[in-house]
Amino acid sequence: MLNTEGLNVAVVGVTGAVGTRMLEMLEGSPLPVKKLLPLASKRSAGKKVVFGGKEWIIAEAKPESFKNIDIALFSAGGSVSKELAPEAAERGAVVIDNTSAFRMDKDVPLVVPEVNEEALHGHHGIIANPNCSTIQMVAALEPIRQAYGLNRIIVSTYQAVGGAGAKAMAELERQTRDVLEGKQPEAAILPVKGDKKHYQMAFNSIPQIDMFQPNDYTFEEMKMINETKKIMDDRQLKVSATCVRVPVPISHGESVYIEINKNNVESSDIKALLSDAPGIVLQDDPAHQIYPMQMNAVGKKEVFVGRIRKDPDVENGFHMWIVSDNLLKGAAWNSVQIAESLLKLGLIEA
Amino acid sequence: MLNTEGLNVAVVGVTGAVGTRMLEMLEGSPLPVKKLLPLASKRSAGKKVVFGGKEWIIAEAKPESFKNIDIALFSAGGSVSKELAPEAAERGAVVIDNTSAFRMDKDVPLVVPEVNEEALHGHHGIIANPNCSTIQMVAALEPIRQAYGLNRIIVSTYQAVGGAGAKAMAELERQTRDVLEGKQPEAAILPVKGDKKHYQMAFNSIPQIDMFQPNDYTFEEMKMINETKKIMDDRQLKVSATCVRVPVPISHGESVYIEINKNNVESSDIKALLSDAPGIVLQDDPAHQIYPMQMNAVGKKEVFVGRIRKDPDVENGFHMWIVSDNLLKGAAWNSVQIAESLLKLGLIEA
Repeated sequence: MLNTEGLNVAVVGVTGAVGTRMLEMLEGSPLPVKKLLPLASKRSAGKKVVFGGKEWIIAEAKPESFKNIDIALFSAGGSVSKELAPEAAERGAVVIDNTSAFRMDKDVPLVVPEVNEEALHGHHGIIANPNCSTIQMVAALEPIRQAYGLNRIIVSTYQAVGGAGAKAMAELERQTRDVLEGKQPEAAILPVKGDKKHYQMAFNSIPQIDMFQPNDYTFEEMKMINETKKIMDDRQLKVSATCVRVPVPISHGESVYIEINKNNVESSDIKALLSDAPGIVLQDDPAHQIYPMQMNAVGKKEVFVGRIRKDPDVENGFHMWIVSDNLLKGAAWNSVQIAESLLKLGLIEA
Repeated sequence: MLNTEGLNVAVVGVTGAVGTRMLEMLEGSPLPVKKLLPLASKRSAGKKVVFGGKEWIIAEAKPESFKNIDIALFSAGGSVSKELAPEAAERGAVVIDNTSAFRMDKDVPLVVPEVNEEALHGHHGIIANPNCSTIQMVAALEPIRQAYGLNRIIVSTYQAVGGAGAKAMAELERQTRDVLEGKQPEAAILPVKGDKKHYQMAFNSIPQIDMFQPNDYTFEEMKMINETKKIMDDRQLKVSATCVRVPVPISHGESVYIEINKNNVESSDIKALLSDAPGIVLQDDPAHQIYPMQMNAVGKKEVFVGRIRKDPDVENGFHMWIVSDNLLKGAAWNSVQIAESLLKLGLIEA
């Protein structure tokens, strides 16, 4: 459903940690939003959100909500996307889905605009936004891959609690207060709301994000492995991951080790590449203690890269430390950025 | 200076985070301590410590303190060790030094008893206790190295604030309270007391531990690289490290990736090895969400290992997650364990 005087945009899950940021990112975007349709569960229907200086009433997300919608941004959980994204696409909306529901479907482009914007041409109504920890990593590695080729990635994550939602962030704060007051903290959400056991996150790290898979990797780890190969369109790329949650509210950190396909490359070459790359901010000046930190990335759209070093023992091996706001570039911003790319490529018309 | 009815043991830096734990570990040890000599800076002289049901008066550490001392445990910083450890050794004491002052000296054994206890035979009065993050890693990897050979280690650490001392732990707590109360937290110690800039540790990770070196690695990272090769006595072993501080008071976590020298090894083989290894506790049952966590390792002497997985793309590559109390196995306990080994090997006499 094309409109001549702007876009009708639906945001599904508009009250969540990512949904609220989707509105913020839309506000700051040159996308010509004519009408906003804020959607959520029945519980939130009737409440209002402010967007573009106007109040908009939240409606319950239903199949018929998507009539006359040009773009539907989904971030209300996998089951909502599975049910409603096909309904939205069928009604002519282009869906940009922030859940893992369709990411590995052959017919669904999995897009980080800095890496594979052109994959958008192959969409059939649904486009998937990758996993937060994957997005910031591939955005930082793509310039290196283009220049030197990439053979291998080994990543250890330092992921923020915000990836598990607003209630998980509140749990971290509550637990932290309890520990400081000498009380026994209660754990009801982290590491994974739907899993059997819950552990204290305050003053602790938890090496489990999402559910365990039959191969003993977590689903989060498998997302990083499989999505990276799909986004970079390289089935031969070796990727392995360990995902750990740390007691930080927002922004993921990643210790990333890569092997490139070219010898005689120095860390200064990689720094030069990244200092000029789209969406990347190089923060790498050890002499002045300049490196990315999670607390500094909050609220920023960019991916911050630093601590770039050559492996002293392996000619083509490099370390780096990659940080980004997991709710923005890892979710809301990347989704809005995809919408901007659709417009730019002529795949939607305003 | 040998004694016939027990050992005279000096503890230098007895009031610090590690020193207090050295006393605890000595209490629990079968070492026959006849006389304790608690030493510290002038500031603490005259204060008392309780050990073996008796009070002992802290004296100022001086060269002549070490007359008639059999074992001197040092943990009062590198400059104190550099000045006083040779004085103690000259007076006949066997020094077990927890600082980095002598670790890479050719004449100084660098010992983790589970790995290279026999290196103690080569001591010349000073024995070095390795860096905390190195100890727990090599203790966990040694059984694997012995069984299959080890080609490569890539480690990313999640290190506790306690490694920077008791004042750093207090800073984390103070900053955390300030953030929760909406105040601007002050940073005066972390990441490195002696470096120029200080950053907020509360609700943040800092990818700097110890000072930066000319090659852009931190000294902590270079310690892990060089000490691992020395302890395992393998200059060909490839080791690379990224060291990150997380807002956790005590116990280091480590995401360790290894490549072994043998094919067709399964993660079940490695789990079987480690379930039976000295000083190691295997905590690896994903179906029941069993894995090591920092908060559970506090106060324990063992090294906890879990999340053991084979790299899906690399035949001989494996991940694991290693956690231990950095103040115990990483410092106080390993030092006392070295003293026990000296006695067992007949290198000191009680």
